[in-house]
Amino acid sequence: MTDAAPTHTEPPSERCRVRRASERGHYDRDTIDAIVDAAWVCHVAMAASDTADADMLCLPTASWRWGDALCIHGSNGSRMMKRLAAGAPACVSITHLDGLVLARSAFSHSMNFRSVVVHGRFDVLEGADKLAALDALMDHIAPGRRVHVRAPDRNELAATTVLAIPLHEASAKIRNWGPHDKEGDAELPVWAGVLPLHSVRGRPQPDPGSEALPLPAHLQHWLQP
Amino acid sequence: MTDAAPTHTEPPSERCRVRRASERGHYDRDTIDAIVDAAWVCHVAMAASDTADADMLCLPTASWRWGDALCIHGSNGSRMMKRLAAGAPACVSITHLDGLVLARSAFSHSMNFRSVVVHGRFDVLEGADKLAALDALMDHIAPGRRVHVRAPDRNELAATTVLAIPLHEASAKIRNWGPHDKEGDAELPVWAGVLPLHSVRGRPQPDPGSEALPLPAHLQHWLQP
Repeated sequence: MTDAAPTHTEPPSERCRVRRASERGHYDRDTIDAIVDAAWVCHVAMAASDTADADMLCLPTASWRWGDALCIHGSNGSRMMKRLAAGAPACVSITHLDGLVLARSAFSHSMNFRSVVVHGRFDVLEGADKLAALDALMDHIAPGRRVHVRAPDRNELAATTVLAIPLHEASAKIRNWGPHDKEGDAELPVWAGVLPLHSVRGRPQPDPGSEALPLPAHLQHWLQP
Repeated sequence: MTDAAPTHTEPPSERCRVRRASERGHYDRDTIDAIVDAAWVCHVAMAASDTADADMLCLPTASWRWGDALCIHGSNGSRMMKRLAAGAPACVSITHLDGLVLARSAFSHSMNFRSVVVHGRFDVLEGADKLAALDALMDHIAPGRRVHVRAPDRNELAATTVLAIPLHEASAKIRNWGPHDKEGDAELPVWAGVLPLHSVRGRPQPDPGSEALPLPAHLQHWLQP
């Protein structure tokens, strides 16, 4: 690709430099935060054990941003939580796919997307940090809902591990333009362009016990296009 | 969770057994294939080197199914392609998020999703297999488009690595039901239910050179809801 998207700052470390199609790389926190904030789920890579040649794990899990960190949570007993809480090296990725890019040659087909990759290790959150991060999760799901639901009790909190990985060693990668055919292909009589993909909110579906309740104010935003 | 989704078969290996909420696990190929076929992108986990304590990588990339394997491709020079072509242990994950599940307690909130996790190592495809897998990629993007675009030339093929990982060591995980509150929470006067999320196709956007061309038959399916 010869087209350049602006790179606002340099990568904070060599391991998070965008290598392929580096003109699509971004390292500013506003760009990174926007991609993290638009996501409900991330994928976390880790080794299943500390040995060389260990099995790899790539597991999806709910994610949200809490200040300068990306957070995940889970049962204390989960394999992923145990490995990450023990400080295993990790890499987290979030990807929003925005469209298929159709070119005039098979080779020049591409995709439009926004992605973030975070490198590092997770910290275990405890005490007030743990509570604040869990509040941020509920605010991420539906701002304002937190005060209406039953808060976590002591046992539920004790059974849950909350982990945070700093966003300072992260990169974003964005492609958001049309096809770029090679010279010589541009004149081929083939339809080229973008097939857009959007994530759309569907109508809230109350469970049987909530059918008589109005949709609360804190969920009205879900109805907006 | 106490509700059970049917488990059609047993996990093919211990490392691909669904551990958490195991009633959501599926191991039959029809379920796995449907989730892979509905995706354009996967996330691949690998170690950045062969050493213990190596940095992890979790990278998004285009994916498609070719018979009994999940395929990815990329430039020969890419870090990911080089590591995986060398036989590094890998794990591939695909996740479709279908909704946020809102319960009456913070703790019981959940998500509806369909995911697949594949364990193993990638094989490098060469010769006729490589061509057939690339044809399958184009068919995945738009069935029938392959004969209209310029096929890859010798240099393009030589510059591209195509990798396949068998789907026989894979698991699917599905949650597709409403909230399950704990006893004692069910009577709380809080709206509970599902906030659905859908992936929707947007109107095809021709590039400047294609504005005068009709949308070809092989792309008409994109207009269907």
